[in-house]
Amino acid sequence: MEVHEIVWEDFPVLQQELGAFETLLQSQFGVSKKNSYLDKLSLEVIKSGGKRLRPAMTIGAAMAGEYRREKVLQAAVGIELLHTATLVHDDIIDNASLRRNNPTVYASEGVSTAVFTGDYLLVKAVLSLVLAGLPVEYLKQAALGVQAVCVGEVEQYRGRGELPGFKTYLSRIIRKTGALFAASCLVGAHLAGFGEEIIKRTARFGAYYGIAFQIKDDLLDITGKKNSIGKPVGNDLKEGIVTLPVLMAAARDDNVRLELEGFLNTQKSGRINKREMARLLKDVTASGGLEHAKNIQRRYTAKAGRFLAGMPDSEGKEILSFILASTFKEV
Amino acid sequence: MEVHEIVWEDFPVLQQELGAFETLLQSQFGVSKKNSYLDKLSLEVIKSGGKRLRPAMTIGAAMAGEYRREKVLQAAVGIELLHTATLVHDDIIDNASLRRNNPTVYASEGVSTAVFTGDYLLVKAVLSLVLAGLPVEYLKQAALGVQAVCVGEVEQYRGRGELPGFKTYLSRIIRKTGALFAASCLVGAHLAGFGEEIIKRTARFGAYYGIAFQIKDDLLDITGKKNSIGKPVGNDLKEGIVTLPVLMAAARDDNVRLELEGFLNTQKSGRINKREMARLLKDVTASGGLEHAKNIQRRYTAKAGRFLAGMPDSEGKEILSFILASTFKEV
Repeated sequence: MEVHEIVWEDFPVLQQELGAFETLLQSQFGVSKKNSYLDKLSLEVIKSGGKRLRPAMTIGAAMAGEYRREKVLQAAVGIELLHTATLVHDDIIDNASLRRNNPTVYASEGVSTAVFTGDYLLVKAVLSLVLAGLPVEYLKQAALGVQAVCVGEVEQYRGRGELPGFKTYLSRIIRKTGALFAASCLVGAHLAGFGEEIIKRTARFGAYYGIAFQIKDDLLDITGKKNSIGKPVGNDLKEGIVTLPVLMAAARDDNVRLELEGFLNTQKSGRINKREMARLLKDVTASGGLEHAKNIQRRYTAKAGRFLAGMPDSEGKEILSFILASTFKEV
Repeated sequence: MEVHEIVWEDFPVLQQELGAFETLLQSQFGVSKKNSYLDKLSLEVIKSGGKRLRPAMTIGAAMAGEYRREKVLQAAVGIELLHTATLVHDDIIDNASLRRNNPTVYASEGVSTAVFTGDYLLVKAVLSLVLAGLPVEYLKQAALGVQAVCVGEVEQYRGRGELPGFKTYLSRIIRKTGALFAASCLVGAHLAGFGEEIIKRTARFGAYYGIAFQIKDDLLDITGKKNSIGKPVGNDLKEGIVTLPVLMAAARDDNVRLELEGFLNTQKSGRINKREMARLLKDVTASGGLEHAKNIQRRYTAKAGRFLAGMPDSEGKEILSFILASTFKEV
């Protein structure tokens, strides 16, 4: 599998709005004397990249109706900061030294500073959403989205070393990843002036997109080259986290299941047997785990597409279509 | 020095409101199936006590004007949850195993779960403030309060092993502790319907109270019995944090300064020489460090009192006076 970076240049209107978004995003961390250290760290994390998928979705959903630029960009900043805050904290949980090919705050500054950098970003995020003029109901939805991320991460953390069922895996990734994509769309659709029906539908699009996105991410953790996602390969298994391809292979092949159990037992004791892991990943591939997971991802991509199809035609809808197609393009 | 627990029973109106507050606070964590684990942990932290000083201040400030009970209690819940969230995260930074005589989330569940429990509480907190109907300007002030806590904690963490000047110490504790007490008062005074002038004055009362409170806390870390504050004694020094009494003693007594530098050097290498620490604390006391810090605390207590005196007479003002007097009562 290859990694498909989305090329925003292919969609000039979106590219332009994302440019304005980027300026607004970075301006949140005007380096004042008072907060300079946390502002500096926040800005570094922000600038280290990321595809800006969530703000792009907020902008897309908002452009599907009446586009109130200022509010939309402010809300998109809030959404991206929520995401960034959870990333900074995830890296503590995942014991991650690299993200987007840069050292994580956790790795370079230690756990203490990473905790408060994440908090700082989280508070700034909420403030952005408030400043965007979101009514209480939608602030509540965004807050529930972040809470879902917390619950999903903690469930995954507590489930380390165990082989989850498909339902457990799915409910985790809905929370961990789906909820914030759903919130991105929800907020955009609300600002577009849509009624409840279309807002809900747009949020469902975001949720299904998020599920497919996470499955793809889990596949990349196994198949990707280190540089393509900026994290070492096999990171999930090293942390004792069993994702869909492994799960599927273990369900179909007793040999894989036994190998997996052996590996997880060793992992629990804090050791990683690299040869054992390489063999496990090879057998996961041989028994069709990757292909199976890929098919499930395609199913969710298609589901997202169907929810999108139900939306009224507009440039915003085209943006969302473009994001969906670009993310899951297969060569 | 003795610890003076505030006896709310001495002020029945306040006690009654705090009872209603407590019910509302705990009801935030109705254990739903979806969030049960984080709800359960949150509820344990909440129930493990705490003096509810910040909500008491919000209630007091609110009762100084037109008391809109429902909104005030909702806002007080938000304030207490902000505080609780920062405590859960502080315990990670402070490497604390006990708080209020209970194991911390960090100690019992590990750093990962503690990070997301704090996030969960933080998001719930903001939501409570939004639900209380606070206008954007005051939400912003509350958010700035939390950001100040983050900055203060990170500054203190980064300053470990160093001897700060008085100004540095003061600016840290204003952020770490003063800012949230100020926000508690600000929010209450706003809900009371006061104009900007009185709101600001009430916030200043909170800030000075907070400074005095932190100095007292720092004194207790040296003089208190383990059980009285639920944390081991000398915890700050063990973490390489130099607080006011030590700072004052070192400024007055070269011998203490040399001992301190020696101790901090050992501490930096990860070792604690208990005998060295005991001697240092004894010499801090002998050179008047405690008394000096106590005098500075009294000065800030008096400042807080002067800001309070400028408020119009009311039951709420009496509540704030009562809190101030009870916190800093000397036998």
